[in-house]
Formats: sequence, C-alpha cells, structure tokens
Amino acid sequence: MSNIYDHAYDLERALRESQAYKDLQHSFEEVWKDPDAKKIFEDYRNLQLDLQKKQHQGTELTKEEIEQAQKQYDIVQRHPKIGKLLENENRLSVIIEDITKIISQPLEDLYQRD
Amino acid sequence: MSNIYDHAYDLERALRESQAYKDLQHSFEEVWKDPDAKKIFEDYRNLQLDLQKKQHQGTELTKEEIEQAQKQYDIVQRHPKIGKLLENENRLSVIIEDITKIISQPLEDLYQRD
Repeated sequence: MSNIYDHAYDLERALRESQAYKDLQHSFEEVWKDPDAKKIFEDYRNLQLDLQKKQHQGTELTKEEIEQAQKQYDIVQRHPKIGKLLENENRLSVIIEDITKIISQPLEDLYQRD
Repeated sequence: MSNIYDHAYDLERALRESQAYKDLQHSFEEVWKDPDAKKIFEDYRNLQLDLQKKQHQGTELTKEEIEQAQKQYDIVQRHPKIGKLLENENRLSVIIEDITKIISQPLEDLYQRD
C-alpha cells in the first residue's frame, strides 16, 4: 500500500534536487546580490502583480498599462542577470505545469465522464 | 539522481489507488446509475459553475442567486447518494490541497525571500 503523502514528499525532494530548481535558485541569488538588478526585478514583479490583480477583479487593462508592461518586460529580459532568472523561471514553470497535469489526471478522469 | 517525472507518476498512481479516490469513484457510479440523482447533481453543478463564472468575471452575485445556491446545496446534501458523493469529494479535496501545499513548498521558498 503506497502512501500518497510519502510520494508527495518524494516529489517535493526531487523538485528541490533538480537542476532546473538549483539553476533558478542560483539566478535569484545573483539578482539579490546586485541591488540595482534587485530593484529592477522587484519593480517589474510589482507591476505584474498589480496588473494581474486588476484583471482578476474584472478590470480591463488600458492600452498604456499594456505598453508599460511590455516595455518593462523588454528591459528586464535584456538585463543579463534578470534575463537569466526569467529564463530559468520559465524552464521550471514548464516542469511544474507537467507535474500538475500528471497528478490532476485521476480527478480529470472522474469529472470528464458524462 | 531521482527523476521528477517518475515521482509525479508514482504520486498519480498512489492517488488512483487510494481509498479516498476509490470511494469517490464509487459514489460517482452510484449517482450516474440513478437518472434522478444524476439530473439533480448535474443541475446543482451547472448552477455552481454559472455562479463561479460570474464571480470570476467580477460580477457580484445577487441575494436571490446566493439563496438559490444555498437551497440547492441543502437539497443535494440531503440526497443519500449525492450527499455521499459530496462528502467523498471533500475528503479527496483535502488530500489534493495537502499535496499541492507540499509540492509548492520549494517554489514558495524561492519566492518568499526578500
């Protein structure tokens, strides 16, 4: 009899030990050690969170807000340390999405029936 | 070197083999075999989905809608087969929430830093 929680903790550990996770962790450290980079990244993230919050509240974003977000994204993406961080973030996101899909399948199977 | 995906599939299998999952599966079958129960349950679920959709779109629910939802919930909860289904749904939800919390912890650790 295999225990769900044991498997969840095994997966958690495997995530922490993965190269993708370690690379992201390293990228964060690089950005956090550099006050300028940290500030740029935090401003970018705060703007993102603000816009997301607006969208979740059902408010349409203005053209200016979308342009501002795009502009900030271009800036951070070209920043060597933050660009690397975003790249590693995306890489780990893909893995997390895959995992979520895999472990949601049993429930999907129950709810997709008709 | 432990592979993330292997662990994800192990967890998926453990979920499927768990008593909580099997019980929910059984409850679904019981409801699906009973045309009246199936109809009541589907009406209830459709109303729930409609109201959720409204809320996600930022629309406030009216007093009548909230009352209608509460009334339908009271009905389905008292129905022996559907009540059992909801109970087993809640039981599995708690497990899924726990799993999600466990495997989100590595990412939380990265993003909670300041």
